[in-house]
Amino acid sequence: MVKLFNLAVNNEKEILEIIKNREEDLDVINDVKLILEEVKKDKDKALIKFNKLFDKVDITNLKVSKEEIDEAFKLVEEDFIEAIKGSIENVKKYHEKQVKNGYSIIEKNGVFMGQLVTPLQRVGVYVPGGTASYPSSVVMNVIPAEIAGVSEIVMVTPPKNDGSINPYILVAASLAGVSEIYKVGGAQSIGALAYGTETIKNVDKIVGPGNIYVAMAKKLVFGTVDIDMVAGPSEILVIADENSNSKYIAADLMSQAEHDKRAASILLTTSEKLYNEVLEEINIQIKDLERKDIIEESLKNYGMAVICEDINKCIELSNKIAPEHLELMIENPLEYLGSVKNAGSIFLGYYSPEPLGDYYAGPNHVLPTNGTARFSSPLSVDSFIKKSSYLYYSKEELQKVSKNIMILAEKEGLTAHRNSVKVRIDND
Amino acid sequence: MVKLFNLAVNNEKEILEIIKNREEDLDVINDVKLILEEVKKDKDKALIKFNKLFDKVDITNLKVSKEEIDEAFKLVEEDFIEAIKGSIENVKKYHEKQVKNGYSIIEKNGVFMGQLVTPLQRVGVYVPGGTASYPSSVVMNVIPAEIAGVSEIVMVTPPKNDGSINPYILVAASLAGVSEIYKVGGAQSIGALAYGTETIKNVDKIVGPGNIYVAMAKKLVFGTVDIDMVAGPSEILVIADENSNSKYIAADLMSQAEHDKRAASILLTTSEKLYNEVLEEINIQIKDLERKDIIEESLKNYGMAVICEDINKCIELSNKIAPEHLELMIENPLEYLGSVKNAGSIFLGYYSPEPLGDYYAGPNHVLPTNGTARFSSPLSVDSFIKKSSYLYYSKEELQKVSKNIMILAEKEGLTAHRNSVKVRIDND
Repeated sequence: MVKLFNLAVNNEKEILEIIKNREEDLDVINDVKLILEEVKKDKDKALIKFNKLFDKVDITNLKVSKEEIDEAFKLVEEDFIEAIKGSIENVKKYHEKQVKNGYSIIEKNGVFMGQLVTPLQRVGVYVPGGTASYPSSVVMNVIPAEIAGVSEIVMVTPPKNDGSINPYILVAASLAGVSEIYKVGGAQSIGALAYGTETIKNVDKIVGPGNIYVAMAKKLVFGTVDIDMVAGPSEILVIADENSNSKYIAADLMSQAEHDKRAASILLTTSEKLYNEVLEEINIQIKDLERKDIIEESLKNYGMAVICEDINKCIELSNKIAPEHLELMIENPLEYLGSVKNAGSIFLGYYSPEPLGDYYAGPNHVLPTNGTARFSSPLSVDSFIKKSSYLYYSKEELQKVSKNIMILAEKEGLTAHRNSVKVRIDND
Repeated sequence: MVKLFNLAVNNEKEILEIIKNREEDLDVINDVKLILEEVKKDKDKALIKFNKLFDKVDITNLKVSKEEIDEAFKLVEEDFIEAIKGSIENVKKYHEKQVKNGYSIIEKNGVFMGQLVTPLQRVGVYVPGGTASYPSSVVMNVIPAEIAGVSEIVMVTPPKNDGSINPYILVAASLAGVSEIYKVGGAQSIGALAYGTETIKNVDKIVGPGNIYVAMAKKLVFGTVDIDMVAGPSEILVIADENSNSKYIAADLMSQAEHDKRAASILLTTSEKLYNEVLEEINIQIKDLERKDIIEESLKNYGMAVICEDINKCIELSNKIAPEHLELMIENPLEYLGSVKNAGSIFLGYYSPEPLGDYYAGPNHVLPTNGTARFSSPLSVDSFIKKSSYLYYSKEELQKVSKNIMILAEKEGLTAHRNSVKVRIDND
């Protein structure tokens, strides 16, 4: 498990290629297209049909009732409620700092312009069902929308056979501020959110993780509505010096590996001794972990350790990989934070493990995966707002700049653009 | 030309449908896939081949030289240089207000977290060639990237038969701050920017308008790199009261219509008299306009006037249409600005016509089209930055929250996540 490389001898390109080549190329586009078309045409009828077909559940009332939510609160443990409330509070505090104001530029002579910031009106959150049912994901997707001022936050999630929804999900949704919940999942639920049905009104944006059908459906409806990024395989990259604790590193690498057999867990270190200790620790700790098989397969294929000359070289390589999660398990992480160019979320020091961020501390756990941290960002309040510009010129000021505008319009061969300025100058 | 509706009698849905149904469904996906694959494989060789095949130009040196740029400055008129410089200055001033800082949250007991904002490193700007060669588009795409701090701004544009580039484009690019320019266009240039070739290093994001091949290529490489939105058919919506000047309205509707036969030009007004005057004015002014044929076809298919009971009703309908450009040609536009929910750019009063914004005043002219202002925004400095979160907890603080994290991890069945916290608590 966990292949060893040495940056001084191995080809860097070889290391990068292993991480890049994790995409699954499942050919579901045609199935998904058919599902979306049927939902667009038959609306609720199609949703009820696909619920039967895919989720083996026969229900006509898709909307979760207030009674079902009340019932869920009775089913979950008190300490879960306390934990999720603590998480929500921290996530709110972190995201409130992201609220953005517009600006205006006011000049003499009646020139006035600026930027308006407005929330999206209606947003859909997809929440997977079954074993991949994650209350923390509800919190991370809903809170930024709520803080942005989105007035309608709609959740869709596949029901169980008996027509019920996981109570932990319902409690998290209720506490986070979801306004409507519908019992439908898969590509069909994405179609409902994008096109609207009798029961589910269409939204402006769809967020949230899902399986390959959901991901493909989101890609296909993009343009009709906005979507968050389609998540690829995820990764953790740990940079550790010789003083770092091998127990912690082993645990953190496996916490990423348990997500998915395509997850990549990467250790960059200055110490080959540490690598050997980490290997030993993995072999000890893995025995007690429920998802042992996934961890083993993931580490076998995409577990890597790279010995680097110094921490700066580790950071350089990390910037090329652009990991979703970056742990700087080194003595003085702040000395290197400024050199990090590409990373979704950065965990500093020995006591800030990835799960602290995944569940609790405040930063979002919806992060750019598979090297996309080169150009994209964690989910945030910005993901749920839009901007408009506005512009006012007085007659006198328009006259002053009219010559320049008309020259530029002329050079582009757009005489109707030129004319729009000209009529205002000529006719007064 | 310009169909008349009355909101009191016509079905609103009918009006919205006309605007929505402007998408061209050109089936170029397979051609574009082949081009991209060949560029990925053969790199420069493929670019040289496609230059010959599509642009009828036989060149081996793809990079524009400093001499060619110097030469371009000699070929363009002094008043063009002055006009484009004025435009650049205003666009800079408007976009500088968008520069975003990170933030940090520092709490007692060694809890420390925040958001880093960093520029994208390398960005590609596509600039169309031929008749659709727009220096203003160079300015609008390059300046926000430059202000964001992007260090490498690369431009690609198809060369003319003789291997040269439109000198107005070269001058605009040079003044705006483009760092490299390459003579290649079409889907092949998008492939080069996404995958890299011997001559053109791959980028992190591709922006800029193009034909259907370019748009499809951008869609297909999205994920490997980021892209700006794929622009659909554009529109102007003018809201006018009975005091509004029909000459101005006619001119502005046609300035949008000349772009494209799929452009929509929409007048919402309280006055049917005004509508009739606007029609007359169109018939007078159109005679002198070079793109008369495009204007006529566009207005015939997508020109609309809707009589509304009052200005509030106009605004309501406009919010549903979510126009790219919204002109409030009314007496007190500021009284209504706060009610505008969905619009790319808003032009206030009688002397702020769309071309003032397209060319000169400062706001960006790259705007969400075809109703996407419901969920997306003008191109801005935000389009060229990315964010990362960072997080530090002390040992004591991790211990305090460890119980809550472990409960949440357990409920999600992720025991390796739980373990990552547990090893840090147990082993000290």
